[in-house]
Amino acid sequence: MPYVNIRVTKEGVSAEQKQALIEGTTDLLMRVLNKDPATTFVIIDEVETDNWGVNRESVTSRRREARG
Amino acid sequence: MPYVNIRVTKEGVSAEQKQALIEGTTDLLMRVLNKDPATTFVIIDEVETDNWGVNRESVTSRRREARG
Amino acid sequence: MPYVNIRVTKEGVSAEQKQALIEGTTDLLMRVLNKDPATTFVIIDEVETDNWGVNRESVTSRRREARG
Amino acid sequence: MPYVNIRVTKEGVSAEQKQALIEGTTDLLMRVLNKDPATTFVIIDEVETDNWGVNRESVTSRRREARG
Amino acid sequence: MPYVNIRVTKEGVSAEQKQALIEGTTDLLMRVLNKDPATTFVIIDEVETDNWGVNRESVTSRRREARG
Amino acid sequence: MPYVNIRVTKEGVSAEQKQALIEGTTDLLMRVLNKDPATTFVIIDEVETDNWGVNRESVTSRRREARG
Repeated sequence: MPYVNIRVTKEGVSAEQKQALIEGTTDLLMRVLNKDPATTFVIIDEVETDNWGVNRESVTSRRREARG
Repeated sequence: MPYVNIRVTKEGVSAEQKQALIEGTTDLLMRVLNKDPATTFVIIDEVETDNWGVNRESVTSRRREARG
Repeated sequence: MPYVNIRVTKEGVSAEQKQALIEGTTDLLMRVLNKDPATTFVIIDEVETDNWGVNRESVTSRRREARG
Repeated sequence: MPYVNIRVTKEGVSAEQKQALIEGTTDLLMRVLNKDPATTFVIIDEVETDNWGVNRESVTSRRREARG
Repeated sequence: MPYVNIRVTKEGVSAEQKQALIEGTTDLLMRVLNKDPATTFVIIDEVETDNWGVNRESVTSRRREARG
Repeated sequence: MPYVNIRVTKEGVSAEQKQALIEGTTDLLMRVLNKDPATTFVIIDEVETDNWGVNRESVTSRRREARG
């Protein structure tokens, strides 16, 4: 009965991609730890880029700089 | 000073239900562990059904199948 | 399929008290949101008192002051 | 490579304030634990006031009472 | 720069299994969302079986019953 | 009433360093968001280096390689 929380920035993750993350994570836990998919929770949090900081900067600023 | 995080799918939890969860959780921690309500935090996260997976499927898909 | 995380300081919570927290939380989610106990996760984290701060102090210091 | 999660109520935190939290937290971890800013994550969660309870009440109710 | 938190019960997960979870999760996020492994955090929490409840019972009790 | 969770690898953080993190974080939230220290929680999680992965590797492996 694993609980997996995947946190990524909110930058257009599609329903299909979310489904791929859910399947991939569940299969990984089954393969490595023999966990039952029926009680494996995978929860995806999408965080606004203003709210995610790395290297003293928000991702919003980093993206803006990357666009130049 | 407990911190309790309740994560549920975003499926129309009302303000009254949230209040009932806050009261019920706080009372439980007071009753069982004698914790002071004044410093008991209860935080409810509501997660989109696309973003919550169980048994290799998103809750969105499970709900759709359940409706047939 | 709720996920509930209860975080408290590591100060001798007994197995019976943990069981009471698990039952009480599960019953609350069943009563208020009609959630199925079979897929309700309740996870208790016990945090060292050095590692929990409130009012700019660790709980270890607060307990020491309280003992005078 | 610290991961810092700051949870506050959703009450109008500006982009500038978020940037100040990101910088301040990253600098603190560099100063105290010599952690590399390049792999220091700071993530801010803003929680609806209905969804945050303290002293058996939601913050929404507490704010309403405070306004009298 | 994803942050992935995998929570499982503390039941003898080996270093090799943890490495497999870290690799598998990182590869999944690279494959599905094109995330850079250099800034992908995977953190595994192992929770005591007394501290993990499902279906109103701790995992400790469930394991005991399963052994009959 | 902020809740701040600081997750770092378990590599000998002293009680004094933890106190500095608690004070620094609480002061930052007071300075930036005018939050009351009396209801500001700062919780430090120390994670085993086997259990923290970055760039497809556990921190245990990375430290071993760094020592050559």
